Amino acid sequence: MFIIGELINGMYSNIGRAIKEKNIAIIQKCALQQINAGADALDVNCGPASRQPISDIQWLVKAIQEITDVPLCIDSSKPQVIESGLQIMKNKAIINSTTADPEKLEVLVPLAKKYNARLIGLTISAKGIPQNKDQRLELAAAIVANCSEQGFPIENLFLDPIVMPLNVAQAQIKDILETINEFKIISEPSPKSIVGLSNISQGTLFRSLINRTFLTMALNFGLDAAILDPTDKDLLDAAITAELILNKQIYCDSYLKAYKKKEG
Amino acid sequence: MFIIGELINGMYSNIGRAIKEKNIAIIQKCALQQINAGADALDVNCGPASRQPISDIQWLVKAIQEITDVPLCIDSSKPQVIESGLQIMKNKAIINSTTADPEKLEVLVPLAKKYNARLIGLTISAKGIPQNKDQRLELAAAIVANCSEQGFPIENLFLDPIVMPLNVAQAQIKDILETINEFKIISEPSPKSIVGLSNISQGTLFRSLINRTFLTMALNFGLDAAILDPTDKDLLDAAITAELILNKQIYCDSYLKAYKKKEG
Repeated sequence: MFIIGELINGMYSNIGRAIKEKNIAIIQKCALQQINAGADALDVNCGPASRQPISDIQWLVKAIQEITDVPLCIDSSKPQVIESGLQIMKNKAIINSTTADPEKLEVLVPLAKKYNARLIGLTISAKGIPQNKDQRLELAAAIVANCSEQGFPIENLFLDPIVMPLNVAQAQIKDILETINEFKIISEPSPKSIVGLSNISQGTLFRSLINRTFLTMALNFGLDAAILDPTDKDLLDAAITAELILNKQIYCDSYLKAYKKKEG
Repeated sequence: MFIIGELINGMYSNIGRAIKEKNIAIIQKCALQQINAGADALDVNCGPASRQPISDIQWLVKAIQEITDVPLCIDSSKPQVIESGLQIMKNKAIINSTTADPEKLEVLVPLAKKYNARLIGLTISAKGIPQNKDQRLELAAAIVANCSEQGFPIENLFLDPIVMPLNVAQAQIKDILETINEFKIISEPSPKSIVGLSNISQGTLFRSLINRTFLTMALNFGLDAAILDPTDKDLLDAAITAELILNKQIYCDSYLKAYKKKEG
Protein backbone atom coordinates (compact mmCIF):
# COMPACT_ATOMS: atom_id res chain seq x y z
CA MET A 1 0.00 0.00 0.00
CA PHE A 2 1.10 3.50 -0.83
CA ILE A 3 0.87 5.52 2.40
CA ILE A 4 0.38 9.29 2.32
CA GLY A 5 0.93 10.87 5.73
CA GLU A 6 -1.85 13.30 6.63
CA LEU A 7 -0.35 15.22 9.54
CA ILE A 8 1.00 18.33 7.77
CA ASN A 9 -2.32 20.11 7.68
CA GLY A 10 -3.00 23.60 9.02
CA MET A 11 -6.23 22.37 10.55
CA TYR A 12 -4.13 20.71 13.27
CA SER A 13 -3.35 23.39 15.84
CA ASN A 14 0.41 22.69 16.07
CA ILE A 15 0.82 22.85 12.30
CA GLY A 16 -1.50 25.85 11.96
CA ARG A 17 0.62 27.71 14.49
CA ALA A 18 3.88 26.63 12.83
CA ILE A 19 2.64 27.95 9.48
CA LYS A 20 1.61 31.26 11.04
CA GLU A 21 4.91 31.64 12.89
CA LYS A 22 6.98 30.16 10.02
CA ASN A 23 8.47 27.64 12.43
CA ILE A 24 10.33 25.39 10.03
CA ALA A 25 11.57 22.96 12.72
CA ILE A 26 8.03 21.84 13.64
CA ILE A 27 7.13 21.13 10.01
CA GLN A 28 10.36 19.23 9.34
CA LYS A 29 10.00 17.19 12.52
CA CYS A 30 6.45 16.23 11.57
CA ALA A 31 7.64 15.23 8.07
CA LEU A 32 10.42 13.02 9.42
CA GLN A 33 8.19 11.40 12.04
CA GLN A 34 5.76 10.33 9.33
CA ILE A 35 8.49 9.07 6.99
CA ASN A 36 10.17 7.10 9.79
CA ALA A 37 6.81 5.58 10.69
CA GLY A 38 6.33 4.28 7.13
CA ALA A 39 4.87 7.09 4.98
CA ASP A 40 5.69 6.87 1.25
CA ALA A 41 4.49 10.43 0.58
CA LEU A 42 3.28 13.42 2.59
CA ASP A 43 0.08 15.38 2.21
CA VAL A 44 0.61 19.15 2.48
CA ASN A 45 -2.35 21.35 3.31
CA CYS A 46 -2.07 24.88 4.68
CA GLY A 47 -5.49 24.60 6.30
CA PRO A 48 -8.69 26.62 6.19
CA ALA A 49 -7.30 29.45 8.33
CA SER A 50 -4.43 30.35 5.99
CA ARG A 51 -4.75 33.94 4.70
CA GLN A 52 -1.97 33.58 2.10
CA PRO A 53 -2.42 29.99 0.93
CA ILE A 54 -0.16 30.50 -2.11
CA SER A 55 2.84 31.68 -0.13
CA ASP A 56 2.03 29.30 2.74
CA ILE A 57 1.97 26.20 0.52
CA GLN A 58 5.24 27.27 -1.10
CA TRP A 59 6.82 27.80 2.29
CA LEU A 60 5.64 24.33 3.41
CA VAL A 61 6.93 22.62 0.26
CA LYS A 62 10.32 24.33 0.57
CA ALA A 63 10.58 23.47 4.27
CA ILE A 64 9.84 19.80 3.66
CA GLN A 65 12.04 19.50 0.55
CA GLU A 66 15.02 20.69 2.57
CA ILE A 67 15.05 17.41 4.46
CA THR A 68 13.40 14.76 2.28
CA ASP A 69 12.81 13.65 -1.30
CA VAL A 70 9.53 11.78 -0.71
CA PRO A 71 6.72 12.83 -3.05
CA LEU A 72 4.43 15.55 -1.75
CA CYS A 73 0.68 15.58 -2.16
CA ILE A 74 -0.55 19.14 -2.62
CA ASP A 75 -3.92 19.35 -0.91
CA SER A 76 -6.16 22.29 -1.71
CA SER A 77 -9.53 23.00 -3.27
CA LYS A 78 -7.99 25.98 -5.12
CA PRO A 79 -6.20 25.18 -8.42
CA GLN A 80 -3.97 28.25 -8.14
CA VAL A 81 -2.74 27.07 -4.70
CA ILE A 82 -2.05 23.63 -6.15
CA GLU A 83 -0.12 25.09 -9.08
CA SER A 84 1.97 27.31 -6.82
CA GLY A 85 3.03 24.17 -4.95
CA LEU A 86 3.73 22.25 -8.16
CA GLN A 87 5.90 25.06 -9.54
CA ILE A 88 8.56 24.57 -6.89
CA MET A 89 8.31 20.79 -6.50
CA LYS A 90 11.56 18.88 -7.04
CA ASN A 91 9.97 15.42 -7.37
CA LYS A 92 6.87 13.99 -9.00
CA ALA A 93 3.92 15.36 -7.07
CA ILE A 94 0.38 14.22 -6.31
CA ILE A 95 -2.56 16.59 -6.76
CA ASN A 96 -5.21 16.29 -4.04
CA SER A 97 -7.77 16.60 -5.60
CA THR A 98 -10.27 17.01 -8.42
CA THR A 99 -13.99 16.23 -8.27
CA ALA A 100 -15.93 14.70 -11.17
CA ASP A 101 -17.19 18.14 -12.24
CA PRO A 102 -16.09 18.98 -15.82
CA GLU A 103 -15.03 22.52 -14.86
CA LYS A 104 -12.65 21.07 -12.23
CA LEU A 105 -11.34 18.35 -14.53
CA GLU A 106 -10.68 20.85 -17.31
CA VAL A 107 -8.34 22.78 -15.02
CA LEU A 108 -6.73 20.06 -12.90
CA VAL A 109 -6.09 17.35 -15.49
CA PRO A 110 -4.03 19.75 -17.67
CA LEU A 111 -2.18 20.84 -14.54
CA ALA A 112 -1.36 17.22 -13.68
CA LYS A 113 -0.15 16.64 -17.24
CA LYS A 114 1.93 19.81 -17.30
CA TYR A 115 3.75 18.91 -14.08
CA ASN A 116 3.79 15.13 -14.67
CA ALA A 117 1.91 14.73 -11.40
CA ARG A 118 -0.37 11.98 -10.16
CA LEU A 119 -3.99 13.04 -9.60
CA ILE A 120 -6.57 12.09 -6.95
CA GLY A 121 -10.13 12.10 -8.29
CA LEU A 122 -12.98 12.20 -5.80
CA THR A 123 -16.21 10.49 -6.84
CA ILE A 124 -18.22 13.54 -5.87
CA SER A 125 -19.76 16.32 -7.92
CA ALA A 126 -21.60 19.59 -7.48
CA LYS A 127 -24.73 17.45 -7.02
CA GLY A 128 -23.29 16.17 -3.72
CA ILE A 129 -21.98 12.93 -2.26
CA PRO A 130 -23.13 9.77 -4.06
CA GLN A 131 -25.48 7.54 -2.10
CA ASN A 132 -24.64 4.12 -3.54
CA LYS A 133 -22.12 2.09 -5.51
CA ASP A 134 -23.67 2.79 -8.91
CA GLN A 135 -23.50 6.56 -8.39
CA ARG A 136 -19.89 6.26 -7.22
CA LEU A 137 -18.93 4.17 -10.24
CA GLU A 138 -20.73 6.54 -12.59
CA LEU A 139 -18.70 9.49 -11.27
CA ALA A 140 -15.52 7.38 -11.38
CA ALA A 141 -16.19 6.49 -15.01
CA ALA A 142 -16.75 10.18 -15.82
CA ILE A 143 -13.37 11.06 -14.29
CA VAL A 144 -11.60 8.24 -16.17
CA ALA A 145 -13.27 9.21 -19.47
CA ASN A 146 -12.29 12.85 -19.05
CA CYS A 147 -8.69 11.93 -18.18
CA SER A 148 -8.49 9.64 -21.21
CA GLU A 149 -9.85 12.33 -23.53
CA GLN A 150 -7.23 14.75 -22.24
CA GLY A 151 -4.46 12.17 -22.68
CA PHE A 152 -3.71 11.80 -18.98
CA PRO A 153 -2.24 8.34 -18.16
CA ILE A 154 -4.87 6.43 -16.16
CA GLU A 155 -2.22 4.57 -14.13
CA ASN A 156 -1.41 7.97 -12.57
CA LEU A 157 -5.03 8.46 -11.47
CA PHE A 158 -6.13 7.60 -7.93
CA LEU A 159 -9.90 7.30 -7.45
CA ASP A 160 -11.35 8.03 -4.01
CA PRO A 161 -14.82 6.54 -3.32
CA ILE A 162 -15.47 9.16 -0.56
CA VAL A 163 -15.53 7.32 2.74
CA MET A 164 -18.46 8.32 4.94
CA PRO A 165 -18.41 8.20 8.76
CA LEU A 166 -19.56 4.87 10.18
CA ASN A 167 -21.90 6.59 12.64
CA VAL A 168 -23.63 8.53 9.84
CA ALA A 169 -23.80 6.13 6.92
CA GLN A 170 -23.37 2.64 8.35
CA ALA A 171 -25.52 0.99 5.69
CA GLN A 172 -23.34 2.44 2.90
CA ILE A 173 -19.93 1.31 4.11
CA LYS A 174 -19.95 -2.16 2.56
CA ASP A 175 -20.96 -0.55 -0.73
CA ILE A 176 -17.98 1.80 -0.45
CA LEU A 177 -15.65 -1.16 0.14
CA GLU A 178 -17.02 -2.96 -2.91
CA THR A 179 -16.60 0.21 -4.98
CA ILE A 180 -12.84 0.08 -4.29
CA ASN A 181 -12.71 -3.33 -5.93
CA GLU A 182 -14.81 -2.28 -8.92
CA PHE A 183 -12.66 0.77 -9.71
CA LYS A 184 -10.16 -1.73 -11.15
CA ILE A 185 -12.49 -2.84 -13.95
CA ILE A 186 -13.38 0.66 -15.21
CA SER A 187 -10.49 0.72 -17.65
CA GLU A 188 -7.36 -1.05 -18.79
CA PRO A 189 -4.81 -0.03 -17.51
CA SER A 190 -6.70 0.34 -14.22
CA PRO A 191 -6.96 3.50 -12.19
CA LYS A 192 -5.64 3.11 -8.65
CA SER A 193 -7.81 3.39 -5.53
CA ILE A 194 -7.26 5.62 -2.52
CA VAL A 195 -9.18 6.57 0.62
CA GLY A 196 -9.00 9.43 3.07
CA LEU A 197 -9.09 6.99 5.95
CA SER A 198 -9.93 9.09 8.98
CA ASN A 199 -13.39 9.99 7.64
CA ILE A 200 -14.62 6.51 8.56
CA SER A 201 -14.24 7.18 12.29
CA GLN A 202 -15.25 10.86 12.35
CA GLY A 203 -17.26 11.56 15.50
CA THR A 204 -16.86 8.06 16.96
CA LEU A 205 -15.30 7.06 20.28
CA PHE A 206 -12.89 4.38 19.02
CA ARG A 207 -11.18 6.13 16.14
CA SER A 208 -7.99 4.09 15.86
CA LEU A 209 -9.84 0.76 16.16
CA ILE A 210 -12.38 1.72 13.49
CA ASN A 211 -9.66 3.15 11.23
CA ARG A 212 -7.53 0.01 11.31
CA THR A 213 -10.44 -2.40 10.94
CA PHE A 214 -11.79 -0.49 7.93
CA LEU A 215 -8.30 -0.24 6.39
CA THR A 216 -7.77 -4.00 6.77
CA MET A 217 -11.05 -4.63 4.97
CA ALA A 218 -10.30 -2.06 2.27
CA LEU A 219 -6.94 -3.73 1.58
CA ASN A 220 -8.87 -6.95 1.23
CA PHE A 221 -10.90 -5.23 -1.51
CA GLY A 222 -7.69 -4.23 -3.31
CA LEU A 223 -7.06 -0.72 -1.96
CA ASP A 224 -3.85 0.74 -3.43
CA ALA A 225 -3.26 3.85 -1.31
CA ALA A 226 -4.50 5.71 1.76
CA ILE A 227 -4.12 9.13 3.32
CA LEU A 228 -3.72 8.41 7.02
CA ASP A 229 -1.79 9.03 10.22
CA PRO A 230 1.30 6.82 9.83
CA THR A 231 2.35 7.45 13.42
CA ASP A 232 -0.65 5.38 14.59
CA LYS A 233 1.44 2.25 15.19
CA ASP A 234 -1.52 -0.10 15.55
CA LEU A 235 -2.87 1.15 12.22
CA LEU A 236 0.40 0.59 10.37
CA ASP A 237 0.89 -2.83 12.00
CA ALA A 238 -2.59 -3.87 10.85
CA ALA A 239 -1.95 -2.63 7.30
CA ILE A 240 1.42 -4.38 7.04
CA THR A 241 -0.07 -7.62 8.40
CA ALA A 242 -3.00 -7.41 5.97
CA GLU A 243 -0.57 -7.10 3.07
CA LEU A 244 1.34 -10.09 4.39
CA ILE A 245 -1.85 -12.18 4.55
CA LEU A 246 -2.61 -11.08 0.97
CA ASN A 247 0.92 -12.23 0.02
CA LYS A 248 1.99 -8.75 -1.07
CA GLN A 249 4.95 -8.68 1.30
CA ILE A 250 7.20 -11.62 2.11
CA TYR A 251 6.84 -13.11 5.58
CA CYS A 252 9.74 -13.07 7.97
CA ASP A 253 9.59 -13.20 11.75
CA SER A 254 10.50 -9.54 12.05
CA TYR A 255 8.22 -8.42 9.21
CA LEU A 256 7.00 -5.26 10.97
CA LYS A 257 10.55 -3.94 11.33
CA ALA A 258 11.50 -5.13 7.85
CA TYR A 259 8.62 -3.20 6.27
CA LYS A 260 9.47 0.04 8.01
CA LYS A 261 13.16 -0.28 7.15
CA LYS A 262 12.32 -0.19 3.44
CA GLU A 263 11.50 3.47 3.90
CA GLY A 264 14.65 4.77 5.42
CA MET B 1 -20.22 -13.99 14.23
CA PHE B 2 -20.72 -17.08 16.31
CA ILE B 3 -17.78 -17.25 18.74
CA ILE B 4 -16.63 -20.57 20.17
CA GLY B 5 -14.18 -20.10 23.05
CA GLU B 6 -11.14 -22.34 22.69
CA LEU B 7 -9.59 -22.19 26.16
CA ILE B 8 -11.01 -25.36 27.76
CA ASN B 9 -8.49 -27.67 26.20
CA GLY B 10 -6.25 -30.12 28.08
CA MET B 11 -3.31 -29.07 25.92
CA TYR B 12 -3.14 -25.85 27.96
CA SER B 13 -1.20 -26.69 31.11
CA ASN B 14 -3.66 -25.08 33.59
CA ILE B 15 -6.60 -26.98 32.08
CA GLY B 16 -4.62 -30.23 31.69
CA ARG B 17 -3.75 -30.06 35.40
CA ALA B 18 -7.34 -29.19 36.39
CA ILE B 19 -8.62 -32.22 34.47
CA LYS B 20 -6.04 -34.47 36.12
CA GLU B 21 -6.79 -33.14 39.61
CA LYS B 22 -10.56 -32.80 38.94
CA ASN B 23 -10.39 -29.16 39.98
CA ILE B 24 -13.87 -28.01 39.02
CA ALA B 25 -13.31 -24.36 40.07
CA ILE B 26 -10.61 -23.79 37.43
CA ILE B 27 -12.78 -25.19 34.64
CA GLN B 28 -15.83 -23.16 35.68
CA LYS B 29 -13.78 -19.98 36.02
CA CYS B 30 -12.37 -20.45 32.53
CA ALA B 31 -15.90 -21.05 31.17
CA LEU B 32 -17.27 -17.88 32.75
CA GLN B 33 -14.31 -15.77 31.66
CA GLN B 34 -14.90 -16.75 28.05
CA ILE B 35 -18.66 -16.19 28.23
CA ASN B 36 -18.22 -12.80 29.86
CA ALA B 37 -15.72 -11.86 27.14
CA GLY B 38 -18.27 -12.62 24.41
CA ALA B 39 -18.19 -16.38 23.66
CA ASP B 40 -21.46 -17.82 22.29
CA ALA B 41 -20.31 -21.42 22.82
CA LEU B 42 -17.38 -23.23 24.42
CA ASP B 43 -15.08 -25.81 22.88
CA VAL B 44 -14.36 -28.73 25.25
CA ASN B 45 -11.29 -30.87 24.60
CA CYS B 46 -9.67 -33.08 27.21
CA GLY B 47 -6.34 -32.85 25.41
CA PRO B 48 -3.86 -35.36 24.05
CA ALA B 49 -2.55 -36.36 27.48
CA SER B 50 -5.89 -37.61 28.82
CA ARG B 51 -5.78 -41.33 29.69
CA GLN B 52 -9.53 -41.64 30.24
CA PRO B 53 -10.94 -39.31 27.59
CA ILE B 54 -14.49 -40.68 27.96
CA SER B 55 -14.77 -40.01 31.66
CA ASP B 56 -12.72 -36.79 31.35
CA ILE B 57 -15.01 -35.30 28.70
CA GLN B 58 -18.07 -36.21 30.76
CA TRP B 59 -16.54 -34.64 33.84
CA LEU B 60 -15.77 -31.46 31.86
CA VAL B 61 -19.29 -31.24 30.37
CA LYS B 62 -20.89 -31.74 33.80
CA ALA B 63 -18.61 -29.15 35.41
CA ILE B 64 -19.43 -26.52 32.77
CA GLN B 65 -23.16 -27.29 32.65
CA GLU B 66 -23.40 -26.61 36.38
CA ILE B 67 -22.82 -22.93 35.73
CA THR B 68 -23.93 -22.13 32.16
CA ASP B 69 -26.37 -23.12 29.43
CA VAL B 70 -24.23 -22.02 26.46
CA PRO B 71 -23.81 -24.70 23.79
CA LEU B 72 -20.73 -26.88 24.12
CA CYS B 73 -18.57 -27.97 21.24
CA ILE B 74 -17.25 -31.48 21.88
CA ASP B 75 -13.77 -31.61 20.42
CA SER B 76 -12.17 -34.99 19.83
CA SER B 77 -10.93 -37.13 16.99
CA LYS B 78 -12.56 -40.19 18.62
CA PRO B 79 -16.28 -40.71 17.88
CA GLN B 80 -16.83 -42.64 21.13
CA VAL B 81 -15.44 -39.69 23.14
CA ILE B 82 -17.74 -37.34 21.24
CA GLU B 83 -20.77 -39.54 21.88
CA SER B 84 -19.99 -39.83 25.58
CA GLY B 85 -20.09 -36.02 25.75
CA LEU B 86 -23.31 -35.81 23.72
CA GLN B 87 -25.06 -38.33 25.95
CA ILE B 88 -25.03 -36.02 28.94
CA MET B 89 -25.48 -32.70 27.12
CA LYS B 90 -28.44 -30.60 28.24
CA ASN B 91 -28.42 -28.25 25.24
CA LYS B 92 -27.90 -28.53 21.51
CA ALA B 93 -24.26 -29.44 21.02
CA ILE B 94 -21.66 -28.94 18.31
CA ILE B 95 -19.49 -31.82 17.13
CA ASN B 96 -15.87 -30.86 16.44
CA SER B 97 -15.24 -32.49 13.97
CA THR B 98 -15.52 -34.79 10.98
CA THR B 99 -13.15 -34.95 8.01
CA ALA B 100 -14.31 -35.51 4.42
CA ASP B 101 -13.46 -39.22 4.66
CA PRO B 102 -16.55 -41.43 4.08
CA GLU B 103 -15.73 -43.68 7.04
CA LYS B 104 -15.75 -40.63 9.34
CA LEU B 105 -18.90 -39.14 7.82
CA GLU B 106 -20.75 -42.46 8.13
CA VAL B 107 -20.18 -42.43 11.89
CA LEU B 108 -20.35 -38.72 12.78
CA VAL B 109 -23.27 -37.56 10.63
CA PRO B 110 -25.63 -40.16 12.18
CA LEU B 111 -24.33 -39.12 15.61
CA ALA B 112 -25.08 -35.46 14.86
CA LYS B 113 -28.59 -36.44 13.68
CA LYS B 114 -29.26 -38.65 16.70
CA TYR B 115 -28.37 -35.89 19.16
CA ASN B 116 -29.69 -32.99 17.06
CA ALA B 117 -26.18 -31.49 17.11
CA ARG B 118 -24.44 -29.12 14.75
CA LEU B 119 -21.42 -30.55 12.96
CA ILE B 120 -18.06 -29.07 11.97
CA GLY B 121 -16.68 -30.57 8.75
CA LEU B 122 -12.98 -30.11 8.00
CA THR B 123 -12.00 -29.93 4.34
CA ILE B 124 -9.30 -32.49 4.86
CA SER B 125 -9.09 -36.19 4.08
CA ALA B 126 -6.81 -39.16 4.59
CA LYS B 127 -4.93 -37.87 1.54
CA GLY B 128 -3.80 -34.84 3.57
CA ILE B 129 -4.35 -31.10 3.67
CA PRO B 130 -5.64 -29.60 0.40
CA GLN B 131 -3.21 -27.30 -1.38
CA ASN B 132 -5.59 -24.94 -3.18
CA LYS B 133 -9.14 -23.61 -3.35
CA ASP B 134 -10.39 -26.23 -5.81
CA GLN B 135 -9.24 -29.09 -3.59
CA ARG B 136 -10.85 -27.43 -0.57
CA LEU B 137 -14.14 -26.93 -2.40
CA GLU B 138 -14.08 -30.50 -3.71
CA LEU B 139 -13.78 -31.84 -0.16
CA ALA B 140 -16.45 -29.38 1.04
CA ALA B 141 -18.82 -30.56 -1.68
CA ALA B 142 -18.17 -34.18 -0.69
CA ILE B 143 -19.10 -33.39 2.94
CA VAL B 144 -22.25 -31.53 1.89
CA ALA B 145 -23.29 -34.34 -0.48
CA ASN B 146 -22.79 -36.97 2.21
CA CYS B 147 -24.75 -34.94 4.78
CA SER B 148 -27.60 -34.43 2.30
CA GLU B 149 -27.73 -38.14 1.48
CA GLN B 150 -27.96 -38.95 5.17
CA GLY B 151 -30.69 -36.34 5.69
CA PHE B 152 -28.62 -34.03 7.89
CA PRO B 153 -29.82 -30.40 7.67
CA ILE B 154 -27.10 -28.42 5.84
CA GLU B 155 -27.82 -25.24 7.84
CA ASN B 156 -26.43 -27.16 10.85
CA LEU B 157 -23.16 -27.87 9.05
CA PHE B 158 -20.08 -25.67 9.59
CA LEU B 159 -17.34 -26.07 6.99
CA ASP B 160 -13.74 -25.35 8.02
CA PRO B 161 -11.32 -24.57 5.15
CA ILE B 162 -8.30 -25.56 7.33
CA VAL B 163 -6.33 -22.42 8.05
CA MET B 164 -2.59 -22.87 7.54
CA PRO B 165 0.08 -20.90 9.42
CA LEU B 166 1.07 -17.67 7.68
CA ASN B 167 4.77 -18.47 8.07
CA VAL B 168 4.36 -21.87 6.39
CA ALA B 169 1.83 -21.33 3.64
CA GLN B 170 1.76 -17.59 2.96
CA ALA B 171 0.88 -18.00 -0.72
CA GLN B 172 -2.21 -20.09 0.17
CA ILE B 173 -3.86 -17.74 2.65
CA LYS B 174 -5.76 -15.59 0.15
CA ASP B 175 -7.08 -18.79 -1.41
CA ILE B 176 -8.29 -19.93 2.01
CA LEU B 177 -10.09 -16.60 2.53
CA GLU B 178 -11.79 -16.91 -0.85
CA THR B 179 -12.82 -20.48 -0.03
CA ILE B 180 -14.83 -19.16 2.93
CA ASN B 181 -16.88 -17.06 0.54
CA GLU B 182 -17.39 -19.90 -1.93
CA PHE B 183 -18.66 -22.34 0.70
CA LYS B 184 -21.92 -20.38 0.54
CA ILE B 185 -22.65 -21.36 -3.05
CA ILE B 186 -22.17 -25.11 -2.62
CA SER B 187 -25.80 -25.69 -1.73
CA GLU B 188 -29.08 -24.02 -0.89
CA PRO B 189 -29.58 -23.65 2.06
CA SER B 190 -25.91 -22.78 2.51
CA PRO B 191 -23.56 -24.50 4.88
CA LYS B 192 -21.97 -22.14 7.40
CA SER B 193 -18.25 -21.37 7.54
CA ILE B 194 -15.93 -21.64 10.51
CA VAL B 195 -12.20 -21.34 11.17
CA GLY B 196 -9.90 -22.51 13.91
CA LEU B 197 -8.35 -19.06 14.09
CA SER B 198 -5.13 -19.54 16.03
CA ASN B 199 -3.61 -21.78 13.32
CA ILE B 200 -2.95 -18.68 11.21
CA SER B 201 -0.38 -17.34 13.67
CA GLN B 202 1.19 -20.64 14.77
CA GLY B 203 4.93 -20.14 15.23
CA THR B 204 4.90 -16.40 14.55
CA LEU B 205 6.02 -13.58 16.83
CA PHE B 206 2.91 -11.38 16.61
CA ARG B 207 0.13 -13.86 17.26
CA SER B 208 -2.64 -11.52 18.41
CA LEU B 209 -1.98 -9.02 15.60
CA ILE B 210 -2.01 -11.73 12.92
CA ASN B 211 -5.09 -13.41 14.44
CA ARG B 212 -7.16 -10.22 14.47
CA THR B 213 -6.06 -9.06 11.03
CA PHE B 214 -6.89 -12.45 9.50
CA LEU B 215 -10.23 -12.59 11.34
CA THR B 216 -11.20 -9.12 10.08
CA MET B 217 -10.47 -10.24 6.53
CA ALA B 218 -12.30 -13.55 6.98
CA LEU B 219 -15.40 -11.70 8.22
CA ASN B 220 -15.12 -9.62 5.09
CA PHE B 221 -15.35 -12.88 3.13
CA GLY B 222 -18.53 -13.85 4.99
CA LEU B 223 -17.15 -15.99 7.83
CA ASP B 224 -19.97 -17.18 10.12
CA ALA B 225 -18.10 -18.62 13.12
CA ALA B 226 -14.66 -18.98 14.66
CA ILE B 227 -13.00 -20.99 17.38
CA LEU B 228 -10.79 -18.49 19.16
CA ASP B 229 -9.62 -16.99 22.44
CA PRO B 230 -12.44 -14.60 23.38
CA THR B 231 -10.40 -13.14 26.24
CA ASP B 232 -8.08 -11.52 23.66
CA LYS B 233 -9.75 -8.11 23.93
CA ASP B 234 -8.08 -6.65 20.83
CA LEU B 235 -9.30 -9.64 18.82
CA LEU B 236 -12.90 -9.30 19.96
CA ASP B 237 -12.86 -5.53 19.46
CA ALA B 238 -11.64 -6.03 15.88
CA ALA B 239 -14.31 -8.66 15.18
CA ILE B 240 -17.12 -6.53 16.62
CA THR B 241 -15.93 -3.49 14.64
CA ALA B 242 -15.69 -5.54 11.44
CA GLU B 243 -19.31 -6.66 11.88
CA LEU B 244 -20.30 -3.05 12.44
CA ILE B 245 -18.58 -1.97 9.23
CA LEU B 246 -20.39 -4.81 7.42
CA ASN B 247 -23.67 -3.48 8.91
CA LYS B 248 -24.33 -6.71 10.84
CA GLN B 249 -24.57 -4.91 14.18
CA ILE B 250 -26.17 -1.53 14.73
CA TYR B 251 -23.78 1.34 15.48
CA CYS B 252 -23.99 3.15 18.78
CA ASP B 253 -21.21 5.09 20.49
CA SER B 254 -20.74 2.36 23.09
CA TYR B 255 -21.02 -0.50 20.58
CA LEU B 256 -18.21 -2.57 22.13
CA LYS B 257 -19.96 -2.69 25.49
CA ALA B 258 -23.37 -3.16 23.87
CA TYR B 259 -22.16 -6.23 21.97
CA LYS B 260 -20.71 -7.90 25.03
CA LYS B 261 -23.83 -7.19 27.07
CA LYS B 262 -25.91 -9.26 24.67
CA GLU B 263 -24.20 -12.30 26.14
CA GLY B 264 -24.87 -11.95 29.75
